This record gives sequence, C-alpha cells and structure tokens, in this order.
Amino acid sequence: MRTKKEIIVMKFGGTSVGDTDKIKRVAEKVIKAKEIGNDVVVVVSAMGKTTDELIDIASRITNEPSRREMDMLLSTGEQVSISLLSMAIQAMGYDCVSLTGSQAGILTDEVYSNAKILNINNTRMIKEIRNNNILIVAGFQGITTGGDISTLGRGGSDTTAVAVAATLDAKYCEIFTDVDGVFSTDPNIVVEAGKIGQLSYDEMLELASSGAKVLHLRAVEFAKKHGVVLHVRSSFNDNEGTWIMDDEKITEKMERPIITGVTYDTNEVKISVFGLKDIPGIASRLFGALAAENINVDLIVQNVSERGSATISFTIKSEDINLVKKVLENLKENLDFADFNMDPGVAKVSIVGAGMQTHPGVAARMFEVLANNDINIEMISTSPIRISCVIRKDKVRLAVKILHTSFKLDK
Amino acid sequence: MRTKKEIIVMKFGGTSVGDTDKIKRVAEKVIKAKEIGNDVVVVVSAMGKTTDELIDIASRITNEPSRREMDMLLSTGEQVSISLLSMAIQAMGYDCVSLTGSQAGILTDEVYSNAKILNINNTRMIKEIRNNNILIVAGFQGITTGGDISTLGRGGSDTTAVAVAATLDAKYCEIFTDVDGVFSTDPNIVVEAGKIGQLSYDEMLELASSGAKVLHLRAVEFAKKHGVVLHVRSSFNDNEGTWIMDDEKITEKMERPIITGVTYDTNEVKISVFGLKDIPGIASRLFGALAAENINVDLIVQNVSERGSATISFTIKSEDINLVKKVLENLKENLDFADFNMDPGVAKVSIVGAGMQTHPGVAARMFEVLANNDINIEMISTSPIRISCVIRKDKVRLAVKILHTSFKLDK
Repeated sequence: MRTKKEIIVMKFGGTSVGDTDKIKRVAEKVIKAKEIGNDVVVVVSAMGKTTDELIDIASRITNEPSRREMDMLLSTGEQVSISLLSMAIQAMGYDCVSLTGSQAGILTDEVYSNAKILNINNTRMIKEIRNNNILIVAGFQGITTGGDISTLGRGGSDTTAVAVAATLDAKYCEIFTDVDGVFSTDPNIVVEAGKIGQLSYDEMLELASSGAKVLHLRAVEFAKKHGVVLHVRSSFNDNEGTWIMDDEKITEKMERPIITGVTYDTNEVKISVFGLKDIPGIASRLFGALAAENINVDLIVQNVSERGSATISFTIKSEDINLVKKVLENLKENLDFADFNMDPGVAKVSIVGAGMQTHPGVAARMFEVLANNDINIEMISTSPIRISCVIRKDKVRLAVKILHTSFKLDK
Repeated sequence: MRTKKEIIVMKFGGTSVGDTDKIKRVAEKVIKAKEIGNDVVVVVSAMGKTTDELIDIASRITNEPSRREMDMLLSTGEQVSISLLSMAIQAMGYDCVSLTGSQAGILTDEVYSNAKILNINNTRMIKEIRNNNILIVAGFQGITTGGDISTLGRGGSDTTAVAVAATLDAKYCEIFTDVDGVFSTDPNIVVEAGKIGQLSYDEMLELASSGAKVLHLRAVEFAKKHGVVLHVRSSFNDNEGTWIMDDEKITEKMERPIITGVTYDTNEVKISVFGLKDIPGIASRLFGALAAENINVDLIVQNVSERGSATISFTIKSEDINLVKKVLENLKENLDFADFNMDPGVAKVSIVGAGMQTHPGVAARMFEVLANNDINIEMISTSPIRISCVIRKDKVRLAVKILHTSFKLDK
C-alpha cells in the first residue's frame, strides 16, 4: 500500500507548452514536483496559437459556426497538448496518464463556448492517482450531461485547474505564467513595482476586475468559493510567486501595507446622457436596454441639474461602443432625453487593499494625491477594499506612479 | 411523425477532405444524398496529411510514445474534420451533428493503435437520425470499455464506415475514393483495364489481398460478415462505381467473365531454405519462429530432393527482410539446415474470379499463357477463386498485360 500523499495541481498556459522543447521543460518541472513527494495533477491549455489557428480554419468554412461544432473543433487543441506532455513525462521514466475534460469527469452546462462547470465526477482521476500516475488533464473543456464536448471560454484552463484542485482537495493550485506573480502595479509603468507575497481572494478579485491581467476573475471566484489556495508563479524560473488565500490565513498581516496594488484600465469609454427626466424608472429603462444587449457597464454616476433634468454618466468597454451607440439612438425618442456623448479619452485608475477597511481616510488621500498633480477626477466608484477614479487617459501613467509612491508601494 | 427513410453511409478519406474547399464539396455531395430522400451518415478521416504531421510532432518528443497517448493524439485529426464538415453542412442550411468515435458508441478492445471493434452502442446515432440530423462520425477511432480513446490502425475509417452501416442496417455503404471503382487490373499498366460493375465479397477479398489497393481487407471482411453492400466510387464525379455484395445477389452473372481481375504485387521477397532434414516438425518450427516475430508469410512451397533433404521456399513482404534474416540466422544451428537465400527480384501475379469454380482448366490456361511468353513460374499458390504465380520482377508488367488480354478483360 502506498501512503497517501498530498495532491498539488499545476496549471500551464499555452505559451508554456508552445513547442516540443517547452513541453519537455514543463515535463521536468512536473517531475520535480512529483519527486518532492507530492501526487501531481497537471492542467494544460492548447499549444501556443493553436486555438487561434483552429478559429481561423473554421472561418474559412463559415462566418457563423454553431457553438457546439466550434467546441468540438477547439477541444482538439488541449487534447494534442495533454498527449504530448504525457509522452514527454513517460519518456523521462514516470507513469503518466492524460485525460480529456470528458475523461476527467468535468460536467458542464450546455452553454457551448462559454460553459460553466456543474460538477466533477472525480472517480477516474482518483483511480489514476492511487495507481501512482502523474495526471495530465485538458484545461478549458468539459462534457455536457448529454455527452457533448463543451468549452469554458476565455480563461477556462485556470478555472479547470481550480475546479480540479477543489474536487481533489489539493494542498494548493499553482498557476504558471510568464510573470513572477502578481505585482503592486504594472512594472512597465513603475519600475519600483514589487511582487506581492500574499493576497486575499477579495483583493485579487478587485485587482483582476480593475485591470490586473495575470488571473481570470472567474477562476479566482471559484477558488474563493471552494477555499482553493492559489500560487501564481513563473514557468521560467523556480522563484516563489504570489499566494492567494482566505484573508484569515494570510500570515503577512503585521507588515501589510494599507494598499496592496494600483491598477489601471485604458480600455474604457465614458458615455454621458443629458436632459433625462428626473422621474423614477428612467435609470432602470436605460440600463435594462443596455443589459438586454449584453453590454457590461462599469462605473455609473448620476447628477440632477438645477432645472430638474438629470445627467447619467457611465463607462463601458471600448469594444462595445458601436452597440451602445445603436441602443442609445433607439432609446432617444422613447426615453425623451436631450442628447448623449461618447468620450473615449478616459481611463480608470484604482487602488486596492484590504487594509483600507481599518484605515479611514484612504479615499480622501487618493483624491488629494491626484489633485496635487493636477489630475481631474471625472467619476468615482468604491468598494470596501477598492477606490476607482475615472480620469483623462493621458494622465493615467502619472496617476499610477504617484499613487504607487504615495501609498508606499515602491520597493 | 417522420416516415422512416432508408439509411445510407458515405465514407470520405483524407484526400477528399484535404482542405476547406474540398470539405465544402463533400458537404454538397452529402446534401444531395439527403435531398434524394435518404437518412445520411457520413464517416470521415483526418484532413490530408494531418495524421502524418501529428506522428512527426510526437517523434520530436520521444521515439517510443506509448500507444495509448499516441491514440489520444491521433484521434484529434478526425475530430477536426468532423466538426468542419458539420459546420459546412449547417452553413448550407441543413441540420447536422458531428460525433467522435466515443460519442458514436464505437467500443473497441484495448489494443491501442490497432484496436478491433467489439460492439457499437448505436443509441445516440439513432436518436440523432430520428431528429432528422445528418450525422458525421469520426472514422478510425473508438473508445475502450475503460473509457480511453483507441484507434483502429491503417484503413480504420473504412472499417468504421462498414461497422456503422452494419449496426444501422444501412441500405449500402459508399466508399468515396480517388478512383472510379475497382478495375480489372492496374490502368497504369493496361490502358484497356475496365471498371468492374459488381464483385462478390470473396472476389474483393482475393483482389485486395493479392495487390489491389482500393479497399482495405479488414473492411471487406467486416462487410462480408455482416452482409453490408459496398459501393466504391469516385469523390470527384457522380459516376456509378463498383458494387460489392453477396455472391447470390450479383445480377451480372449471365455475362460475367470467368476472371474478374488481374493483380500483382512487387513488394515480395522470395526466401529459400536449403538442406533441411526431411522429418516431421521442421516446417512448424521454421514458420513458428517467423510467426513469433509477427512476420507475415505469403506463398510457401516445399520440395524434397533425391538425397532426402528438403528445400522450403516462401515469400515475405520486403519491409520484413532484415527481421527474417535475423530469425533465420538464429535458427540455423538449432534447425541444422545448410543455408538460406533471399531473392528480392521476384513479383507475384494473380488472377481472381468466382467464375473459375465452374470452369475447369483456368490454371492450366494461365500457366500456358505465361509459358508462351517465356515467363518462368517459380512458385504457385491457389485458392478456389484465385491463382497466383511468383515470377521474375522484370516480367510482371508483361504478365499482367497478356493475362488481362487472354482472359478477355480488355474493354
């Protein structure tokens, strides 16, 4: 009988398995983790640009492929990478089994191309682990209760890794990426940006939703819900990365700064709708019409002018600009507003930190720092652990730098 | 309620779905068959050179990939082609569903890379057909009872098509290929070669096993066992091809020639083992040792010389020559024979036809025709409907021509 070991989950993205040499390097990393004495489950994405190439070949057949057939097509990408990684590990002398999403028991709903995981039947995975196999699981894909192949949409492999870690009660889930971890801000803007050692789920969620790109929101939400400890680290070195866990488990609290990170997003457009009647139901009809078109609205502010008419401003993602324009033009007569205006010259800067909950005056300090540098604030939005300001786009690099310095994040 | 239609199975090989334009042409062919009023099930191979490319990428990982992982890898090839063909058919306005081997219920044994079909669970296929869908099934692949992906080896897509036709009780199974059907001999050698209208399973089996390359032996055996009518035809035109069925069903019998085809095989090597003791058990030990190394032996002849020692000659495929040499060298001491000789300068020419069963003297006529043209016969082998002669390789084109003419096959 084999004594029970602790399971760790390691997730590698498409760039980490971009060619056969990289696959061999990933195999070495996996074996190292096995040699330390863990049971290892690896989740991989499709190699490099495979998914884009498959999308391209489908576009030569039709502009509107059915989503079911698209998932049938795209899921081959991970099936190639799991088999190659498994071969590489076996060639190094270790027992290894690759599993498609279906074989790994990842059951999803039938929303093809953006499916949600409903449940994981982990019988097969547990059997293979008990037989001392290293397990390679295809990320991004699952199977519907009807037996059809589905994919989880963008960031799906992260979600697979977290879900597998949850169902196997893994010690932690390591997300290997091309950076050393989560940084206090974008190192391309602030050279003094430092790697964050530990973060709570809520902080990571706020960072991810306000502009940090290292982890997908959905995977973090899943990890929070199931208490899966995440470790975001580089696939190119052995450095410790960023640990993400329950706030109570964070051990660095004593020395924790009030703010853990500064983020920004230049992909926003500010929409202002003028001359709205100041009566109940107007906002609901406006945002109801936008929601019906699946348009994500970020910040919203409303002012009432002295003449009794209201102005509502909100921000959207720049890719939705034409759709929003169409919706507003259709609404104009019906809602009886004077005009609207679309301003792509804005950006959002945010500060995030669980520490602000116990330190009053953080917002005031942020506004003061911006004002002292002649940066005008056009919109404000807050959560218990985040403050976001919409400012002019050409001021965003300056804003990030001075906020990073003022809140003592420069390393 | 839909009235029950007759099901036809259409199989397209890799060259027929080699690029997206060819896939669209296949889609049109499939829709035409549906429009006539059939239920249509399509079996497809991987696109063009996909399988070779996947084998190549695996070889960059390891020289000895496990067969399970190789099947995991190779099966992606058909998964790509079924999804693309399904998209193409849907884009032309028809309901269509693609199914992997696993989804189509094709259960195999666990001999990865050369699996045999054990059973087909056709529940899903029948459900989709009842819903008036055109069905696209991945050829070449299946699933083991343990839930692992397997492949059927070379010619596997033909076998899938025949097996699917059998389980669905299809009216017939059409094998689309790059020639117009089965010919009376190789048109590259004999310009007067004609397309054969109808063939019995046994004739097709003898033609396939003695050199004709249009259909795989295994698929024909499967069709014979389950009584599936085959139609071999071109994917580039709408011409009638060659029908293959039970001998009793053949309608052309009245005008049937005694011989239906002349085949040849230049891929043979003649081995002669001299000075064997003429005692029982020698042949069994010799061919037992060859069988243990999976060497296929074709023709065998044995002569006893006046001095009481025997000579055994047999033919093998030329790719096995080094292996056979090793086996014979190891056996030499043990079996106590004088020497052996390997002659790659031979070829086999065969005549095939169910008619020879009722026409005595066919063999004598074949030998006479060859003798009249100074072609020496080195070995002879016969079945009830086939006669094969091993001759010098440089005489094979002449032999094929004169036999084709003598047996009145020139069109």
